Amino acid sequence: MESDGRIAIENVWPQLECGKFSAKAVVGDKFTVKADIFTHGTDLISANLKFRPQGSAVWESIPMQLEDNDRWSGRFEIPTTGFYEYTIEAWVDKFATQSRNIASWIMGGESIDADLKVAISMLKDIATRCGSKDSAFIRKKIAAIGRSDPADVPHLLNDPGLLSIVRQYGEKKDLTTFSPVMRVSVDRVKAGFSSWYEIFPRSQGNKPGVSGTFRDCEKKLDYISSMGFDVLYLTPIHPIGITERRGKNGARKAMPGDPGSPWAIGNSFGGHDAINPDLGTMDDFIHLINVAKKKGLEIAMDLAFQCSPDHPYVKDHPEWFYHRPDGTIRYAENPPKKYYDIYPLNFDSPEKENLWKELKRVILFWIEKGVKIFRVDNPHTKPLDFWKWILNEVKKDHDDVIFLAEAFTRPKLMYELSKIGFSMSYTYFTWRNYDFEIREYFSELSSPELKSHFRPMIFTNTPDILPPILQKAGRPAFMFRSVLAATLSPLWGIYSGFEICENQAVPGTEEYLNSEKYEIRNRNFDEPGNIRELITKLNAIRRSEKALQSIGNVQFHQSDNPNIIFYTRQSNDGKEALMVAVNLNPDQVHSATVRVPLSLVGADESKPYKVRDLLTGDLYVWNGEYNYVRLIPGERPAHILKVER
Amino acid sequence: MESDGRIAIENVWPQLECGKFSAKAVVGDKFTVKADIFTHGTDLISANLKFRPQGSAVWESIPMQLEDNDRWSGRFEIPTTGFYEYTIEAWVDKFATQSRNIASWIMGGESIDADLKVAISMLKDIATRCGSKDSAFIRKKIAAIGRSDPADVPHLLNDPGLLSIVRQYGEKKDLTTFSPVMRVSVDRVKAGFSSWYEIFPRSQGNKPGVSGTFRDCEKKLDYISSMGFDVLYLTPIHPIGITERRGKNGARKAMPGDPGSPWAIGNSFGGHDAINPDLGTMDDFIHLINVAKKKGLEIAMDLAFQCSPDHPYVKDHPEWFYHRPDGTIRYAENPPKKYYDIYPLNFDSPEKENLWKELKRVILFWIEKGVKIFRVDNPHTKPLDFWKWILNEVKKDHDDVIFLAEAFTRPKLMYELSKIGFSMSYTYFTWRNYDFEIREYFSELSSPELKSHFRPMIFTNTPDILPPILQKAGRPAFMFRSVLAATLSPLWGIYSGFEICENQAVPGTEEYLNSEKYEIRNRNFDEPGNIRELITKLNAIRRSEKALQSIGNVQFHQSDNPNIIFYTRQSNDGKEALMVAVNLNPDQVHSATVRVPLSLVGADESKPYKVRDLLTGDLYVWNGEYNYVRLIPGERPAHILKVER
Repeated sequence: MESDGRIAIENVWPQLECGKFSAKAVVGDKFTVKADIFTHGTDLISANLKFRPQGSAVWESIPMQLEDNDRWSGRFEIPTTGFYEYTIEAWVDKFATQSRNIASWIMGGESIDADLKVAISMLKDIATRCGSKDSAFIRKKIAAIGRSDPADVPHLLNDPGLLSIVRQYGEKKDLTTFSPVMRVSVDRVKAGFSSWYEIFPRSQGNKPGVSGTFRDCEKKLDYISSMGFDVLYLTPIHPIGITERRGKNGARKAMPGDPGSPWAIGNSFGGHDAINPDLGTMDDFIHLINVAKKKGLEIAMDLAFQCSPDHPYVKDHPEWFYHRPDGTIRYAENPPKKYYDIYPLNFDSPEKENLWKELKRVILFWIEKGVKIFRVDNPHTKPLDFWKWILNEVKKDHDDVIFLAEAFTRPKLMYELSKIGFSMSYTYFTWRNYDFEIREYFSELSSPELKSHFRPMIFTNTPDILPPILQKAGRPAFMFRSVLAATLSPLWGIYSGFEICENQAVPGTEEYLNSEKYEIRNRNFDEPGNIRELITKLNAIRRSEKALQSIGNVQFHQSDNPNIIFYTRQSNDGKEALMVAVNLNPDQVHSATVRVPLSLVGADESKPYKVRDLLTGDLYVWNGEYNYVRLIPGERPAHILKVER
Repeated sequence: MESDGRIAIENVWPQLECGKFSAKAVVGDKFTVKADIFTHGTDLISANLKFRPQGSAVWESIPMQLEDNDRWSGRFEIPTTGFYEYTIEAWVDKFATQSRNIASWIMGGESIDADLKVAISMLKDIATRCGSKDSAFIRKKIAAIGRSDPADVPHLLNDPGLLSIVRQYGEKKDLTTFSPVMRVSVDRVKAGFSSWYEIFPRSQGNKPGVSGTFRDCEKKLDYISSMGFDVLYLTPIHPIGITERRGKNGARKAMPGDPGSPWAIGNSFGGHDAINPDLGTMDDFIHLINVAKKKGLEIAMDLAFQCSPDHPYVKDHPEWFYHRPDGTIRYAENPPKKYYDIYPLNFDSPEKENLWKELKRVILFWIEKGVKIFRVDNPHTKPLDFWKWILNEVKKDHDDVIFLAEAFTRPKLMYELSKIGFSMSYTYFTWRNYDFEIREYFSELSSPELKSHFRPMIFTNTPDILPPILQKAGRPAFMFRSVLAATLSPLWGIYSGFEICENQAVPGTEEYLNSEKYEIRNRNFDEPGNIRELITKLNAIRRSEKALQSIGNVQFHQSDNPNIIFYTRQSNDGKEALMVAVNLNPDQVHSATVRVPLSLVGADESKPYKVRDLLTGDLYVWNGEYNYVRLIPGERPAHILKVER
């Protein structure tokens, strides 16, 4: 006759695929756990959220609170990186039930004698089990109850000190613990909040056609950090293949002097653990890391697990590649496309164990040099179990390492890469232009399941993506798209040239014309019309406003003009909120009446309140729910509004 | 180096609390299973839905289909009652991938030689492993491919016969099977589709104040079955307590001659396995069961696990009750209310094992007499683990037994009782009056999770619930409420007297005045104004229309007048659909423009279509999405519309 299952603990959140995957958090988060917890009949229950660092034998417990409709919640603060385990325990709280009954008898004008007797005997029983100080406290309370008027008994029974002792030493009837134990992966703060700037190191010199160096990169650090970015992401810095090298604009054949795509990794100078000599030496690279660090910039490195035909692996480990029936190594294909300059690695080869270990060695090699952030190229083309293994292997000893998944693929595969361990992920942002598209996508990303693990990295552009809106509408589009990107997620980034509104594309494509992927570009960042000031402002607001630093807390609100999107961001603790209104039309002035979620933003329903536009400093007096905004493309395309208290 | 987890099988539906609970189905259902299934890269995958009767060692497999966005579905037909197990397997389909690549090379004008070689070698390999007939088939196809124009190759590779052999004998690369195995509990059809009529047997006589008998009940069978009901639910038929018996309208003290509440079970004539001698003998009861059966009515019995102070258990097993500190047995309390005539059973008593076994014996006793449907009184006041145990014990040998949970309590507890094994459940229908209330509630019941296990039984009224709308609005309300009840779920019922629009309440309550719970009522069912004809019509439509026989397929559609609610019902196979429009206002004629989901109901977008009102037989010609309805309280309060094809 089984007797478990008397208390239901269900619909636990976060819980990913029955505990198969970990939720995510960053250090300092108050990590919230919710569950439906209930039992039959009318007895009251109590519940604890239990948690511990993985590997610890001892659970800490924090009382959970009943929210509504049998839904309970609790939260614990996470002090360090690494994995934490959590679960829930619940029990029938006989003492609380007895107290509640006594209060009800009093309300109904009935005698409390019988039930009070039971309650007192529970307390006496606890007094025999707890420490002498608590025991004395209980006896004092029992005496006070004995002297008191019946009407005061409920109040005395609900004494917080008494309840705390009862919680610790009282009988936990039908104690039920949820299984399986769940895990949360805790990263450092940058995994959840950072601002990225992407460069091709070779473009950082100033002689046309001559490769810039790491030393040249150092000269750009002040410029980049002055805009408020804190991560500097470098495209691959390794030697570049010569065989089948591509020419300008991706031409099938390179011309003499063409530098090739940095993603065609490896030549006689080495492979994934080598540095392209044109950029400098390993010491130069380490120097750059350290100088950048002093200026508040952390270097993020590209991890593209593929090879040029000249990569040392091709000679040393032909078994790690795919072979045609005739024995030759197969270049990358995505029928009907062929990529002659790239040999994909065969993660399934009979020698895969050595390959996987070698790739792990590569990551650890760069970690040892000081790199702690990796932007992973096309992870969706490599097996999920490979990533699960390698991320886990690396994080075992380096739980401060951050991996960004560059997976532009089907949504479920993107989300899966996050579940198996990637710290953050690129998104579809560049292809979401209209009101309804942005609402739908970012509402999805703010759904309970996704917000528990998927951290959206919003790049406005990448070397592969110059979206049509930027091509066609120019500077006004660059302005409002940067406001969206910087305020729809705590993770955002731009690819160099965005701030000077570079928008020349290969016609009919999203490719940059004269793409930096295939040639060296020297830019004049002081060109008139640049939007450096706006970007600097956005990063400053992001740093000062907690509301912009939380994952998944985007909520959309009513606007009566689809050209103006209106949303709020909220800090994790719910204490701070901002409103953002953006004119999505780069060509026309638009106005709208927007509906303010008053209590969420801390506005008073009954009287006018002041809202400050953090972009301009302007102050508006608003009143009630419905208020008016008017936004001018290229000039004042958006408001970021904070209620002044 | 782990290598599982290469193919993701996630978000499996139905799957309740990670497989802890079973989904539900009825015999003959095509049981649908869905999952997100995907892997990295661009290789194609295939998936099977696997199922077997619980206890069988052999799985049957059915191919799943890709729906959209990595979501797959499959369905198997369930031939018998009992438990079935199901799971999903998926693999990388190298042959399908090769075929797809070949087609893409052709589209891109590239050579297919290399990839066709690989495909042919896969086929040759399979030919060595399959039977000789299949092998010959493959060789014939290879020869045909050899002779064919390259442009025709994809067509030849996609030959269904070939694909079927490949599916059976081809390599299943990275084969992944979902765990845990899930279960579906399969009931007979009545558990998912039945129409109930509730009576107090003692009221079926015709002498005022004299108890009717089972023989009297038999005389009512024609009347009841002529309305189209197929389950006759009897309030408790056991001896009724004398001590603390309640009087008319629930008075604290009974007057001489008051028959008492049938839920105060047990006196010197016996308890839960005895029959109140006023109703007849056990033989009479069995006779009633058999006669009813011949008239298409199955008897449902009340199972109220509580005792009057005179129940034999009280003397024989005082240890099964709650005791006060002074040793007396505690009557039922729900502070500040006291129920002197009821002793609750203590399911936690040290002797609970004997109590649980005795209650199991009671159920098996009645099953042996021929009862296969039990309406369980207040299951939410007894422990969940008790129900889980007893339902499982009973179903082991009697998987045709149906249990209806009468749990009017918090929603999550109601749903939990369904998850642990109750076949069907009462709902909040009686308290859902307005458009938005009905939409919200029945949309919740049609949500993916609930529709997979929760079967809503819609009673229009019960001996405990005469809802205000019926009290106040009389006959027109009885009419439209019966249309709602009969069309919002395949399970509905009325409590006797509803059809003659009985609506006198104890003022300020939902209790019937002169409630049958405390006295014998003799009714004249031929009273003018009865709605027997409407009810008969509704039951006839329910029987003839598959669309009204499926669980959870209620969808609401736009109506521009909140007084008129508009929804569709759909058969499980999606092939049949009905539209229902109901005027929720019992006092006023209302009209509305409703929006027809054209493809769902099988209407043609491009030309007028005919809709038949199944209630009146009237034919309307409708056109496009938006159409007009006008509904008259008390006369034509609703349409049940079917598109004529």
